[in-house]
Amino acid sequence: MTLASDRLAPMANAIRALSMDAVQAANSGHPGMPMGMADVATVLFAKFLKFDPSAPKWADRDRFVLSAGHGSMLVYSLLHLTGYASPTLEDIKNFRQLGSVCAGHPENFLIEGIECTTGPLGQGVAMAVGMAMAERHLAATFGDDLVDHNTWVIAGDGCLMEGVNHEAIGLAGTLKLGRLKVLWDDNKITIDGDASLSTSEDIPARYRASGWDVFECDGHDFADIERALGQAAASDKPTLVACRTLIGKGSPNKQGGHDVHGSPLGDAEIAATRENIGWAHAPFEIPAEILADWRSLGEKGAKLRAEWDARLAASDKGAELTRRMNGELPSGEEAAKTFAGWLESETTVATRKASENVLNVLAPLVPEMVGGSADLTGSNNTKAKCQSAFSAKDYAGRYVYYGIREFGMSAAMNGMALHGGVIPYGGTFLIFSDYARNAIRMSALQQTRVIYVLTHDSIGLGEDGPTHQPVETVMSLRLIPNLYVFRPADVIETAECWQIALESAETPSVLALTRQNLPQLRTSGEMLSARGAYTLRRAEGDRKVILIATGSEVELAVKVQGALQAQGIGADVVSMPCMELFEAQDAAYKHEVLPNDPSILRVSIEAGVTHGWERFTAFSRNGGLNIGLDRFGASAPAKVLFERFGFTVDAIVPQVLEKLSS
Amino acid sequence: MTLASDRLAPMANAIRALSMDAVQAANSGHPGMPMGMADVATVLFAKFLKFDPSAPKWADRDRFVLSAGHGSMLVYSLLHLTGYASPTLEDIKNFRQLGSVCAGHPENFLIEGIECTTGPLGQGVAMAVGMAMAERHLAATFGDDLVDHNTWVIAGDGCLMEGVNHEAIGLAGTLKLGRLKVLWDDNKITIDGDASLSTSEDIPARYRASGWDVFECDGHDFADIERALGQAAASDKPTLVACRTLIGKGSPNKQGGHDVHGSPLGDAEIAATRENIGWAHAPFEIPAEILADWRSLGEKGAKLRAEWDARLAASDKGAELTRRMNGELPSGEEAAKTFAGWLESETTVATRKASENVLNVLAPLVPEMVGGSADLTGSNNTKAKCQSAFSAKDYAGRYVYYGIREFGMSAAMNGMALHGGVIPYGGTFLIFSDYARNAIRMSALQQTRVIYVLTHDSIGLGEDGPTHQPVETVMSLRLIPNLYVFRPADVIETAECWQIALESAETPSVLALTRQNLPQLRTSGEMLSARGAYTLRRAEGDRKVILIATGSEVELAVKVQGALQAQGIGADVVSMPCMELFEAQDAAYKHEVLPNDPSILRVSIEAGVTHGWERFTAFSRNGGLNIGLDRFGASAPAKVLFERFGFTVDAIVPQVLEKLSS
Repeated sequence: MTLASDRLAPMANAIRALSMDAVQAANSGHPGMPMGMADVATVLFAKFLKFDPSAPKWADRDRFVLSAGHGSMLVYSLLHLTGYASPTLEDIKNFRQLGSVCAGHPENFLIEGIECTTGPLGQGVAMAVGMAMAERHLAATFGDDLVDHNTWVIAGDGCLMEGVNHEAIGLAGTLKLGRLKVLWDDNKITIDGDASLSTSEDIPARYRASGWDVFECDGHDFADIERALGQAAASDKPTLVACRTLIGKGSPNKQGGHDVHGSPLGDAEIAATRENIGWAHAPFEIPAEILADWRSLGEKGAKLRAEWDARLAASDKGAELTRRMNGELPSGEEAAKTFAGWLESETTVATRKASENVLNVLAPLVPEMVGGSADLTGSNNTKAKCQSAFSAKDYAGRYVYYGIREFGMSAAMNGMALHGGVIPYGGTFLIFSDYARNAIRMSALQQTRVIYVLTHDSIGLGEDGPTHQPVETVMSLRLIPNLYVFRPADVIETAECWQIALESAETPSVLALTRQNLPQLRTSGEMLSARGAYTLRRAEGDRKVILIATGSEVELAVKVQGALQAQGIGADVVSMPCMELFEAQDAAYKHEVLPNDPSILRVSIEAGVTHGWERFTAFSRNGGLNIGLDRFGASAPAKVLFERFGFTVDAIVPQVLEKLSS
Repeated sequence: MTLASDRLAPMANAIRALSMDAVQAANSGHPGMPMGMADVATVLFAKFLKFDPSAPKWADRDRFVLSAGHGSMLVYSLLHLTGYASPTLEDIKNFRQLGSVCAGHPENFLIEGIECTTGPLGQGVAMAVGMAMAERHLAATFGDDLVDHNTWVIAGDGCLMEGVNHEAIGLAGTLKLGRLKVLWDDNKITIDGDASLSTSEDIPARYRASGWDVFECDGHDFADIERALGQAAASDKPTLVACRTLIGKGSPNKQGGHDVHGSPLGDAEIAATRENIGWAHAPFEIPAEILADWRSLGEKGAKLRAEWDARLAASDKGAELTRRMNGELPSGEEAAKTFAGWLESETTVATRKASENVLNVLAPLVPEMVGGSADLTGSNNTKAKCQSAFSAKDYAGRYVYYGIREFGMSAAMNGMALHGGVIPYGGTFLIFSDYARNAIRMSALQQTRVIYVLTHDSIGLGEDGPTHQPVETVMSLRLIPNLYVFRPADVIETAECWQIALESAETPSVLALTRQNLPQLRTSGEMLSARGAYTLRRAEGDRKVILIATGSEVELAVKVQGALQAQGIGADVVSMPCMELFEAQDAAYKHEVLPNDPSILRVSIEAGVTHGWERFTAFSRNGGLNIGLDRFGASAPAKVLFERFGFTVDAIVPQVLEKLSS
């Protein structure tokens, strides 16, 4: 493609027109960014981006991430104008309306051409880091003839100020991710007003200090943009291009001000803008020759894609790359056999260690698994023996030292999963999932297969004290839709939960794992964790009580059962490694485990807040009983804490008896 | 104090000995950092820090923050050696044991001399930024003769890598917080190994790019340390001192390696260390002359404090400064009168706007309130008319433009509250409380009066879509111990909740507020929100149903009540603005609102996840009914979304009838 500059200006104005008209029609949205970055985006798509609108999921396409997601009309315009099947013009006319794929912020699960869901600021850049990592890893594994693409990002001041962005650029610099190119919409405006109200940073200097290249351009001069993007494309470092722009460019009375950021221009100003940019067309009308210029851009990509298809077909690695990019797992037979063998071994280990044992089985069999930790490798037990470091020296490595960057790690994992071809998992202490919480939410919303290995899952971590002891954390993660929160009770459940997590292609998983040892509770039988909860021990005689527990407290529930049985009180023990999966079972199974009989006393035991357990216990004799910890923990050895906070047979049995008799 | 260098070395070794011995006795903890930074900390306390061990809460003391909180034995040693009443030697001997104030990480609520609770990395620096902000604000308000102190921080590589630290340094640079001095323990080691595994940043360059001064020193050369700290003290910019240290310095076989970070040295290596540093004393024994040198350090501070006391007594501003530092509120009479007047006004407003109305009443009356927003001032409605910007040009300003830094803002607010003399509040969208979640938890753990103004609290925000729509967020915040989560239903409840939040000196608050308008529901009566929940509307005739709702759904519950009553079904409407406060009521009141009668059908209505509502509804006819949203939202106008997701009278009434009849 060699479109001359005079052809680019009307193309960019098509973005401006679509954006201001769609926002106006919705009476809601953000016209400022799409109008301000229209020129830069036009050059990017016309001259640099490798894409084929007829094949949005082409494995070797460049990734384009709109980190400043509020400017969604920019990417909707680009996808439509270049000829992607979605969004249609009708979708754009229904911007921000129920049923339109053109949501307020770009959503990867609604439009194939959207690489990731953005809006929560900073995370787009951080996901792009993950995409660039996945690209380098696959290139190192499959060769440059099959994997060789860039990740381009458009980011705003908001993205650059967020902490997660700082973590991301530090990681990208250390990993020397030269295929990552961030175009910064340097418009000097934030919502509160001039950016200088809240920032005074020398941004180019900061990026250079983190190992990045930095170029600058006038974001409204096509030749200058092309020059700067060319320098970025040629750099072997991660690169920032500071694009000096006017927010809302084209709007004669509003451009450059913060009012144009998040409100419709209004009919009068839209008319003035049409006049100003010479756009004499009706709303949503794109003149044929301008549309033709846009549509022509895909041709080059289609040709490249056809060549790539041929290389893929000819390569002996083609089938494996295709399998990985399709997210299909290799056969699980061997792993299943190994895990079945574990039943007989009766191993007492911490579930974090059990998880490491599982990884040592799975990682060699599932080569797309790429692990890591936010600087707690030895504590999270996340590194399998077969994994070497993923680094600038060896992108084929499968273990990432993410550094002390929980949020950056989690967002990068989202990017890796969305890129495809890898299944990322990463560890930190469960409590520090707080730091990454919105990225975990974004895993769930984006339907990515990301696995969070979160160890030290209760007061069982002991001496580090309340800053490090999750009490509300497990339950709070359970509230996030489309997230499996597993809290396995022993080595067997740990293996089962890992298996479910791997097999859940559109649902991320959390594995909440202990620091302390736990005995093996099952020595025979089949996969049970997939039901979410199951009866681990049956009452002897008349069942008066059902004890429901998770993780480290299942062992305790078994002991409580024994003590109750000794007094002639029949009690089931239900292990509930995953509330979400149990909720998804049919009523018959649920009533088998938890009978619809309010005369039975239901008791939950979990070393965390009780709020939320009423879902399973309150429909019960005397409203049920919840054994938990409704306060912050304390610093002491784990055993002392469990005693102090009442997680003992002696403390629990009397409460059960009282509830039964009252 | 002019202790010569040869007196400093044994003093530093006292820290090393206490630290390694306490960690060994506990068989748990982190000796590497206290031993590595012992020399720097000794110079800081001997030559620079303004403190008086006999008056830990002296308003004009320098603040000392150990951001690398795992090195807690450093600060315990310093406090004990310099003569603070707490911790005692006995406490230190019981390091990390139940009942000892020497917890695994330093906890402000256990020891007066601990300025803030640290351990969650990066937040110590960010809290220190807040302390330095509070200092400058009070200095501008009360004059340098009463407020004139520094905030000193010791931070590690972990702190510096975390995103929240990046946000904090950006804010500090913009605000030109020259009283902030960060001593970086530059030991090139992280838990996973050499720091270069995960970071390659030119840290001095990055800090300079953010407006900081940077000095460097050999962290084991007393004269060089003193030179660098002197430069830091003299700088009028926020300052980083890179202290090149050996982690675990003194341990002949382990120093400089990452094994010494988080494990006891072991008896043999402790013996070798004693030999190496010439420490021939028994565990926990400090020779009298070394202790005397340490104790002498407080004398200078005591003299300065006495002079300050005299200035305070003589100042006409002394009483007001004392009131603010004591956290005592001014009389609430005038505000209460104003709010009482509102009852008659029947105002329909969004609760975010109601909150702004409240602020315009309170902010003039409570001058210690310092507001702000993470770049959403116009959306969060957080700025009172009487507030001007807090900036490097005017530290007397009472409104902070925090920038797009939710986590940094929240941690800074913790620091401001802990410093004392100000009551911070700050806003962002409720969904982005995710970014700040661990700081909110730290508000709760540290018992700080921080008020989070979190607007756009449900799908009611409309078109911005699921990335911006909290569904699990309100409930997940309710799980954090010692946090009030308010979701007021109208302008009256908003005023009440603000009042409770201000009056809760040891409990932080979240105000979850709507974007959309809500009618006023009460026009007479007294403060009711303080009970957490109350019967807003009584059933006519026989009560068969209790509808429990919060925030924007209370209006809907009232309409549902009307529809049920029209069919002859008596229903109460309970408004529950704060679950935590309701839980704290006595049983009599709770049963008055929610009778202990499972034949009544309890129905919750809240535009968020239902999980957690069973606490109030499951002990009920047929297990109760929970109307909510157990999935992510969508992008569309608010009214359309409420209809789509069943928050209408027409959708709810049939479900109630079915539950009643089944």
